[in-house]
Amino acid sequence: MATDQKQKGETTTTAAAAAAPAAEQWQFAGAAKEALTGAGDKMSIRAVRFKISASVDPHDPRPVLPLAHGDPSLFPIFRTAVEAEDAVAAALRTGKLNCYPAGVGLPDARRALAEHLSRDLPYKLDTDDIFLTAGGTQAIEVVVSVLAQPGKNILLPRPGYPNYDARAAMNNLEVRHFDLVPERGWQIDIDSVESIADKNTTAMVIINPNNPCGSVYTREHLTKVAEVARKLGILVIADEVYGNLVFGDSPFIPMGTFGHIAPVLTIGSLSKRWIVPGWRLGWVAVCDPSKILQKNSKLITAITNFLNVSTDPATFVQGALPNILQNTNEEFFKRIIGLLAETSEICYREVNDIKCITCPHKPEGSMFVMVKLNLYLLEGIQDDIDFCCKLAKEESVILCPGSVLGMENWIRITFALDSSSLLDGLERIKSFCQRHKKNVLNGF
Amino acid sequence: MATDQKQKGETTTTAAAAAAPAAEQWQFAGAAKEALTGAGDKMSIRAVRFKISASVDPHDPRPVLPLAHGDPSLFPIFRTAVEAEDAVAAALRTGKLNCYPAGVGLPDARRALAEHLSRDLPYKLDTDDIFLTAGGTQAIEVVVSVLAQPGKNILLPRPGYPNYDARAAMNNLEVRHFDLVPERGWQIDIDSVESIADKNTTAMVIINPNNPCGSVYTREHLTKVAEVARKLGILVIADEVYGNLVFGDSPFIPMGTFGHIAPVLTIGSLSKRWIVPGWRLGWVAVCDPSKILQKNSKLITAITNFLNVSTDPATFVQGALPNILQNTNEEFFKRIIGLLAETSEICYREVNDIKCITCPHKPEGSMFVMVKLNLYLLEGIQDDIDFCCKLAKEESVILCPGSVLGMENWIRITFALDSSSLLDGLERIKSFCQRHKKNVLNGF
Repeated sequence: MATDQKQKGETTTTAAAAAAPAAEQWQFAGAAKEALTGAGDKMSIRAVRFKISASVDPHDPRPVLPLAHGDPSLFPIFRTAVEAEDAVAAALRTGKLNCYPAGVGLPDARRALAEHLSRDLPYKLDTDDIFLTAGGTQAIEVVVSVLAQPGKNILLPRPGYPNYDARAAMNNLEVRHFDLVPERGWQIDIDSVESIADKNTTAMVIINPNNPCGSVYTREHLTKVAEVARKLGILVIADEVYGNLVFGDSPFIPMGTFGHIAPVLTIGSLSKRWIVPGWRLGWVAVCDPSKILQKNSKLITAITNFLNVSTDPATFVQGALPNILQNTNEEFFKRIIGLLAETSEICYREVNDIKCITCPHKPEGSMFVMVKLNLYLLEGIQDDIDFCCKLAKEESVILCPGSVLGMENWIRITFALDSSSLLDGLERIKSFCQRHKKNVLNGF
Repeated sequence: MATDQKQKGETTTTAAAAAAPAAEQWQFAGAAKEALTGAGDKMSIRAVRFKISASVDPHDPRPVLPLAHGDPSLFPIFRTAVEAEDAVAAALRTGKLNCYPAGVGLPDARRALAEHLSRDLPYKLDTDDIFLTAGGTQAIEVVVSVLAQPGKNILLPRPGYPNYDARAAMNNLEVRHFDLVPERGWQIDIDSVESIADKNTTAMVIINPNNPCGSVYTREHLTKVAEVARKLGILVIADEVYGNLVFGDSPFIPMGTFGHIAPVLTIGSLSKRWIVPGWRLGWVAVCDPSKILQKNSKLITAITNFLNVSTDPATFVQGALPNILQNTNEEFFKRIIGLLAETSEICYREVNDIKCITCPHKPEGSMFVMVKLNLYLLEGIQDDIDFCCKLAKEESVILCPGSVLGMENWIRITFALDSSSLLDGLERIKSFCQRHKKNVLNGF
């Protein structure tokens, strides 16, 4: 067509347009947002996981064992509750939930979730306190994005979940990290929180039950978090995506319990407790019984406006939520907790039997444990990423390197697999470590 | 707990933290991102629609008629194809698609979509050219976000779809508008595109079939778009969310057809053609047979990285895509086109019968038509928003005011309803206009 029009000489403009610009004239050459290209592969767990998976030897006849991420849904023993599946299928089949949802979620679904979450709180959440999101991922996106004013900063845990860092970078929001202390059961170093905060700090993120450490915070520790937030005048973003998935001595206590001390935005999801990360239903719950956020900020308005121009969880999954919450049999949850209790025991026991790696704290919740690489005991392994890539290549086991979580030369292992796959995976890690141990250690 | 610890005098820090900061000490007071609070209600169609809907008189016994947005899914006659519904239900019931998907989409779904879209292109799209997104909304989010480098600008149509403007504002990307000309069948004013572009322009957005105007661009017009993009050295973002929904003289021609002239990122979705906006499955297709984007920019990397930290369409909906594309009966599409052809005729005829509003161009595609308010013929109506609010209050009809689309004192009407509801709605608009016409016009 371009040539035709040139021949016709239709207009000068059109004819000129048909001449190809030289490569350097394409003006989008430098147009890609730097936060999305500069960090490269390191900006997301997904990207790192794909990279490590690519190291797997396709000729290895053994199954690839996914010990890198919290998604056991493909193991039949971890299949979601039939009541949840039935609820989604029924909602789809009504034909009345193919429509756009409201930006902040279907009212019935928000109401049901407010009631559900209120059971574990000392006050009642209202329908308006609930914002439905497309998974925990979008909940992180909205919370970090609405806080991204120039000059402000946000406090994140180290080790942590890198989506917070990535979203902050995409929004030019400054990040400061406080430490989780392995020697203290991965508790938050409250003093370091105070030392890094300043007058431009607006929020701190806690993850409980903790990803990646597998720790569960006590009531006393959560109270201290609330109090330091109040002292600093900041809000608490409580990532409770692994909420209720606890199997140690500490019960799960929602951070919202302390919402009267400092306002809390709770991030949650069906993904982990119901083992349906692919359904993409999450939420932000405003746990702020003193209405401090309403009185002192435009954050709630900003969340609403953000969600009005953003994608949503599928309407029929939202429509199924009341039935999912009401009908899922307690036996399902007990069975899943039982499985995780068993596999976390296996994991802790077997990891302790492997020289060259050290696990400082037995997991009590979530689906993960952090393990330290003793690189001085290993031959020819440069760092955690090198360890994970070589392990993938030689043993077809995928682990998550700690450097993507903020802890170089640690690795995150998930125990949320069926126990025979987990044992197989840990056995392969053991073989790998034995094969790569330094010669000087033959006496071990 | 706070009080307990204070009494115990556990640490000075904890005791101090328990003291309530005065309201002005909450540091998140000014923390909400301005782009999300400054624009207020005007930043999204959804927010404006909710505001107008709130004007409806709850005592009006008549049904509220939704002539504001492109979602006829609740009318039984517009229910989606049974093959599509079956495909999603079957995918859900496998139990194997509860897992996280890959960030850019399930490979089988991407491959099926590449084949599907290639049927209408002069070259073949590859699996890697397809990025699945959570609806067209997320496709807009990713495309605008990856282009948001400081100092750059993007060209948007006026009237247009305000999510582009909102996303650009949230990313601090400068927006410049070119005009669609009602007297020329809402064609793009190509000269105005050239006049507003400069060396920092990276892309232009076209919407075809057009939302909000109902126009469909000819092959000749699309060629001119490609040529001006090439001349300016910019890429074309082709929003084809209403692709294939045409019922006038012009066939639907994908912008990707001209990808050899200038690179095209095509935005598409199941939402409109399959009438399932609540399923949230969309895509970005890279229509760039000369691989100009790969050679000259990091945009493809940026898209991948963006999607790796973003939410996804539900995995089981992705899993259903190959069957949806392959099995949906052509009769379904024909029937929907037939319905839209009929309702667009009704809409155009009836609107022309209403004094005080003028429709310059008969719709040929999408689900909308733009209509001008002749305010000088109306008594006590200040502007388009006032018109829509009063109409909602008095007649329980919801329209979309043009000002949210960039055209003050116009309104957007959807004709995607069953014909009796549409006729009812247009009749109510007619009554409203007659009731509000200026006295001087009694002779009309």
